[in-house]
Amino acid sequence: MFTLLQTDTGPNATRARRGRLQTTHGTIETPIFMPVGTQGTVKALDPRELRELEAQIILGNTYHLSLRPGMEIMERMGGLHRFMGWDGPILTDSGGFQVFSLAKIRKIQEHGVAFQSHIDGSPLFLGPKEAMEIQRIIGSDIAMVLDECPPHAAPEKQLREAVDRTVRWAAECLKQPRAEGQLYFGIAQGGTHKALREECAQRLVDLNFDGYAIGGVSVGETEAEMYEAVEYAEPHLPADKPRYAMGLGTPPQLLELVARGVDMFDCVLPTRIARNGTAFTRQGALTIKASYNKDNEGPIEEGCDCYACRKFSRAYIRHLFHAQEILSLRLLTIHNVRMYLRLMNDVRSHIEAGTFAEFRKEFVAGYVPSEKVREDREKAGE
Amino acid sequence: MFTLLQTDTGPNATRARRGRLQTTHGTIETPIFMPVGTQGTVKALDPRELRELEAQIILGNTYHLSLRPGMEIMERMGGLHRFMGWDGPILTDSGGFQVFSLAKIRKIQEHGVAFQSHIDGSPLFLGPKEAMEIQRIIGSDIAMVLDECPPHAAPEKQLREAVDRTVRWAAECLKQPRAEGQLYFGIAQGGTHKALREECAQRLVDLNFDGYAIGGVSVGETEAEMYEAVEYAEPHLPADKPRYAMGLGTPPQLLELVARGVDMFDCVLPTRIARNGTAFTRQGALTIKASYNKDNEGPIEEGCDCYACRKFSRAYIRHLFHAQEILSLRLLTIHNVRMYLRLMNDVRSHIEAGTFAEFRKEFVAGYVPSEKVREDREKAGE
Repeated sequence: MFTLLQTDTGPNATRARRGRLQTTHGTIETPIFMPVGTQGTVKALDPRELRELEAQIILGNTYHLSLRPGMEIMERMGGLHRFMGWDGPILTDSGGFQVFSLAKIRKIQEHGVAFQSHIDGSPLFLGPKEAMEIQRIIGSDIAMVLDECPPHAAPEKQLREAVDRTVRWAAECLKQPRAEGQLYFGIAQGGTHKALREECAQRLVDLNFDGYAIGGVSVGETEAEMYEAVEYAEPHLPADKPRYAMGLGTPPQLLELVARGVDMFDCVLPTRIARNGTAFTRQGALTIKASYNKDNEGPIEEGCDCYACRKFSRAYIRHLFHAQEILSLRLLTIHNVRMYLRLMNDVRSHIEAGTFAEFRKEFVAGYVPSEKVREDREKAGE
Repeated sequence: MFTLLQTDTGPNATRARRGRLQTTHGTIETPIFMPVGTQGTVKALDPRELRELEAQIILGNTYHLSLRPGMEIMERMGGLHRFMGWDGPILTDSGGFQVFSLAKIRKIQEHGVAFQSHIDGSPLFLGPKEAMEIQRIIGSDIAMVLDECPPHAAPEKQLREAVDRTVRWAAECLKQPRAEGQLYFGIAQGGTHKALREECAQRLVDLNFDGYAIGGVSVGETEAEMYEAVEYAEPHLPADKPRYAMGLGTPPQLLELVARGVDMFDCVLPTRIARNGTAFTRQGALTIKASYNKDNEGPIEEGCDCYACRKFSRAYIRHLFHAQEILSLRLLTIHNVRMYLRLMNDVRSHIEAGTFAEFRKEFVAGYVPSEKVREDREKAGE
């Protein structure tokens, strides 16, 4: 159900791939960015807007949806597609990442993790069985296995245990009943440890999943370490299956990861920073509330075809943001999601045309990185 | 530019009127409800949604817009229509009501009111000249004169002074330069005092405005007193000019006021209570967060043609509201505004068909009033 259409050719060819993934609710052209719809909505957007933005697939979060509305209601409502009015493909994570990052007091056990809800503190348990059962009820097109995501800079012993547990749980997940046509993706861990990354990838491939994710990235490591983690795992993943880098990243990071053979991405950045008044452009981030926008009649980004850029000025959106109007968050979210999706459109065209390496070089050179990324690079001694 | 098409006929005919108002940016079929766009947006909605809801005219607030973005930016942006991307009719209030309700320390003087901004406390002055100059720059289709709105239960002496000042200021407003094709409406005050209401209406009519508003209502008086205030003024207003009851009301109140000869209404209720999780239906208000909606697959209101009711269940909107998702506020706002606009569509059809009195009677009987309205009625000893 995944077709590798083309690999990067042309001068200084990268490992970039052009592919096509068939799912129950539609076809996904890769490389692709997947907007995040944590609680059953991509924040501030409605399904019609997602279609107009040409979103091909969105994410849902197993952890959040299992706490609220809960699987009893989800099942009665006929699954997430029907509940939220989105008939396109949906990918759900396993909830593991949230259990390890959001939940209170947790205890890792043989068959899963005991933890407390971050909403009301109620005691809960999430194991391979539970994670896949929740995703079966949600009815996502792509379900992720439950993995253990250790913190950044965890000692080797802990990384090793997490890899073993992740592989054991992955095997257990494979045995669970699926929603009709549901695909299962494995998740490679191993932190920044080369041998463990390689081993984890290989052992998951032996289990034969429909696709493979690289997890345990963007958990506090530097940008350079993140690229390395991907480079360690990627050569061990089969060419005929999609590769997904979880929770990444900035626009230039997406291009760097495409160049390293990754096909699928998800990230809260475009929707989250929109709600902080920041817009992504191909030159870098733009702070809409800045006073230099106060009488700027131009759009957020010249050449952008989104509703916000076609119809409204920076001056207006800035006014709305200062006046704390919901419409400002909507318009910035629309632009940021469209910016990411247009960028991936261009990535696909350039791979097809054999001009991806050039496009990547020019884009990355022309993009002003954020404070945080610059600090990371200094830390990494670049 | 106002055409009185029809007055209520049929059994127990009321004073209801069917009219048509021509403005620079389009024709308005009356009776009409005007959604409130205080700060240059109808809260949570975009202009495309307003069109789909069949909004014929919206409000802008002189007081808020003069503070933010300010008239320097408004003028550079070419007025409010262009600034907010709405090419339909706009009515602006004079700012008087906000100065008397929102602003800090104020001093009423011969030629206006000195007050302090509620945003940053900066000293400001609003008189007839200033109010009309701001509305000229905003470029609204209908501008309201600056009036003095005394508090409910003000002593007769204060009501009398407010009426005299309101009439004097109204005359001064008439002399001010207008935006092209801009209409000027006078505002009748007089509190709950019959003679003062009559006198104020008559003196404004002598000045010959394009339309007349009844102000100083819904300022704390009971529902019965509010109806009386309208009944005092209305007979003294010319039949060939539109009548506008400012800041009203609930759905049954709108019907009661139509029956008393009012043509135009504005109210923050439908948009404000949407953001509190409440939906208007023809049976009364609905609390979406109530647990009885948790697995309700039905729409907010059966038979409603709005996007929220066509596409989403109560269970989903309830989930979004509890998860504090922006989309819940959007969907409830869409429904509430559409509910008001559909109600006015029906009002117009029933006046045309000579069945308005019947429709009003059935609607009011079938609508469960809110706590507040019930309390008011008890206060009034009904």
